[in-house]
Amino acid sequence: MVSNTPVSIPAEKLAKLIAELFVAAGLSQQAANTVADGLVEADIQGLNSHGVMLVEMYIERLRKGAVTRVELAEVSSSRQAATVLDAANALGHLTGDQAMSIAVDKAREFAAGIVAVRHGFHFGTAGRYALSAANAGCIGIAMCNTRPLMPAPGGAERIVGNNPIAIALPTAGEIPIVLDMATSEAAMGKIRMAEKAKADIPSTWAVTNEGVPTTNPTEAIAGMLLPSGGPKGFGLSFMIDLLCGLLSGGAIGSQVRPLYGDLSVPYDCSHLFIAIDVAHFCDVADFRQRAAAAAEQVRAGRRAPGVEQLFTPGEPEWRKRQYSNGTVRLEAAVVQTLHRLSAELGVTASPLNNQ
Amino acid sequence: MVSNTPVSIPAEKLAKLIAELFVAAGLSQQAANTVADGLVEADIQGLNSHGVMLVEMYIERLRKGAVTRVELAEVSSSRQAATVLDAANALGHLTGDQAMSIAVDKAREFAAGIVAVRHGFHFGTAGRYALSAANAGCIGIAMCNTRPLMPAPGGAERIVGNNPIAIALPTAGEIPIVLDMATSEAAMGKIRMAEKAKADIPSTWAVTNEGVPTTNPTEAIAGMLLPSGGPKGFGLSFMIDLLCGLLSGGAIGSQVRPLYGDLSVPYDCSHLFIAIDVAHFCDVADFRQRAAAAAEQVRAGRRAPGVEQLFTPGEPEWRKRQYSNGTVRLEAAVVQTLHRLSAELGVTASPLNNQ
Repeated sequence: MVSNTPVSIPAEKLAKLIAELFVAAGLSQQAANTVADGLVEADIQGLNSHGVMLVEMYIERLRKGAVTRVELAEVSSSRQAATVLDAANALGHLTGDQAMSIAVDKAREFAAGIVAVRHGFHFGTAGRYALSAANAGCIGIAMCNTRPLMPAPGGAERIVGNNPIAIALPTAGEIPIVLDMATSEAAMGKIRMAEKAKADIPSTWAVTNEGVPTTNPTEAIAGMLLPSGGPKGFGLSFMIDLLCGLLSGGAIGSQVRPLYGDLSVPYDCSHLFIAIDVAHFCDVADFRQRAAAAAEQVRAGRRAPGVEQLFTPGEPEWRKRQYSNGTVRLEAAVVQTLHRLSAELGVTASPLNNQ
Repeated sequence: MVSNTPVSIPAEKLAKLIAELFVAAGLSQQAANTVADGLVEADIQGLNSHGVMLVEMYIERLRKGAVTRVELAEVSSSRQAATVLDAANALGHLTGDQAMSIAVDKAREFAAGIVAVRHGFHFGTAGRYALSAANAGCIGIAMCNTRPLMPAPGGAERIVGNNPIAIALPTAGEIPIVLDMATSEAAMGKIRMAEKAKADIPSTWAVTNEGVPTTNPTEAIAGMLLPSGGPKGFGLSFMIDLLCGLLSGGAIGSQVRPLYGDLSVPYDCSHLFIAIDVAHFCDVADFRQRAAAAAEQVRAGRRAPGVEQLFTPGEPEWRKRQYSNGTVRLEAAVVQTLHRLSAELGVTASPLNNQ
């Protein structure tokens, strides 16, 4: 029997191990560092579903060829502010960093840069890319499509993914301003937690396989997630699907394959990255000051009874990072899996649970 | 006593009268036609809150100088794909058409065009502008900020508007694909209807003035609308506020004044218009075909029990327009107001209720 207690691990140590795993799986040290950084950054912000728990699946896909060892996507076309990349099913963190970097370069020249990516793979948190544009003085927008997970309002069939979108903007404040949202009303993880706790879920979270709203988490898991705000989240998700897949000439809808399905079949999602250079519109320092002041106003706002703190978009994740003291908390099962992968790949980094 | 029965009026006749009212209020015939067209188009799509019921307020603001007779916004700056307009508190339909037209021209040249507007006024439905870009072969995005109406999650103070965003894209299908959404969970109109019907509202729609969720429509009306999907709608609204107001150097948050408050004070909202030229990325005919096929797949999807039809974003409004037979249905009170305005302004067009 193994303990289920979460394990605390220094982020740096964890990132080093993850990078070694990817090097052993055939990536260059630099590319491996990028992917490791992206995954550990998600964990340290409390976004464990986008963290190192993904490593096993990423590496299995690398082994099976459904994720390639390509480290630089090919520029399929570049016309003024528009770039189309073919990512050749490379690891999405590599593609994402490359794509947003191109978008920012284009934005410096043209005021905006728009990079559409086909044959993409899971890129972790969309916020990572939006934020990197914001750090460069741009509005950053990143989105991608996933396989269908949600019905149209009134539908009884998965037709759109819970396609995420992230928007970030430059601020003079210490706390970044970044919205990173999936278009579903709730995450599947929350529904699984309700099932474990034998609790009901709100009827707006999910429907049965017949499309009937349910408060039963088990029925919900066998059924479908609902879009956030009904037609609003559905519409947003449908637009994200088409924007990513059509501008890139890539996959949309069920052409995107299940992330945890047959791991020998490429995931084949599409991405869209937009950077808008603030300096082409106005004084960047003014922009940053006004953004920081607006964020401060949200935080200083009057609170409802029992509410201790109000947050701006992205602030909860930033606070988790601050409170982490550079330490990541992982489920024991995830640590075990990393140890097994280390053994399989002949990686001899010091084990994670012997700090 | 006047009947409360809705009145059916040919759209063309209505638009002609509305245009005459604006001419009498000091606009050129062309500008008056544009505003009349925008308002009547909203009514014919069933979006009466954005239709000719606004004429009285628009004209009162014109009389009081809070809306100006400026018909062409001044280009404050134009750098590559970026344009900033100062709308001088002109009627928003005029500014919106001008701004999206500039965005499309820029997109032809640079792949993208982004136009930020300060000192703007209510522009009707955001979808109008997104759709005009789509009709020109572009992705069209239009957004604007409103005065604060909604709290942050957990807040007890209005901090963001229910800032709308519209996204449209080119399609080969007959039915346009256009998402036009406010960022609130529900419209105030729906809550007023629940109050009339003495019905409860879902607890996700609104909070009391203390920030406590309520199912009582009367408490909700005295309280605040809630953002769609909680932090998601709030984050989206906050981002729209900052994107519109900061890129334009215009108003954000409570710098935007109440639309129905003191009508001698400029509304002073900010807008953002984005056009992305599909031809810079891929074959436009292919894009249109794939978009139409994706929309068709939504409509043909399996339905939940009791559901007769599934809709793509913008389809319900398009269908209302189709079913209208060119006829607008207006509340009797709105028609009365238009008659009164006609008399006041000396407009002698044939009265609306004598078809």
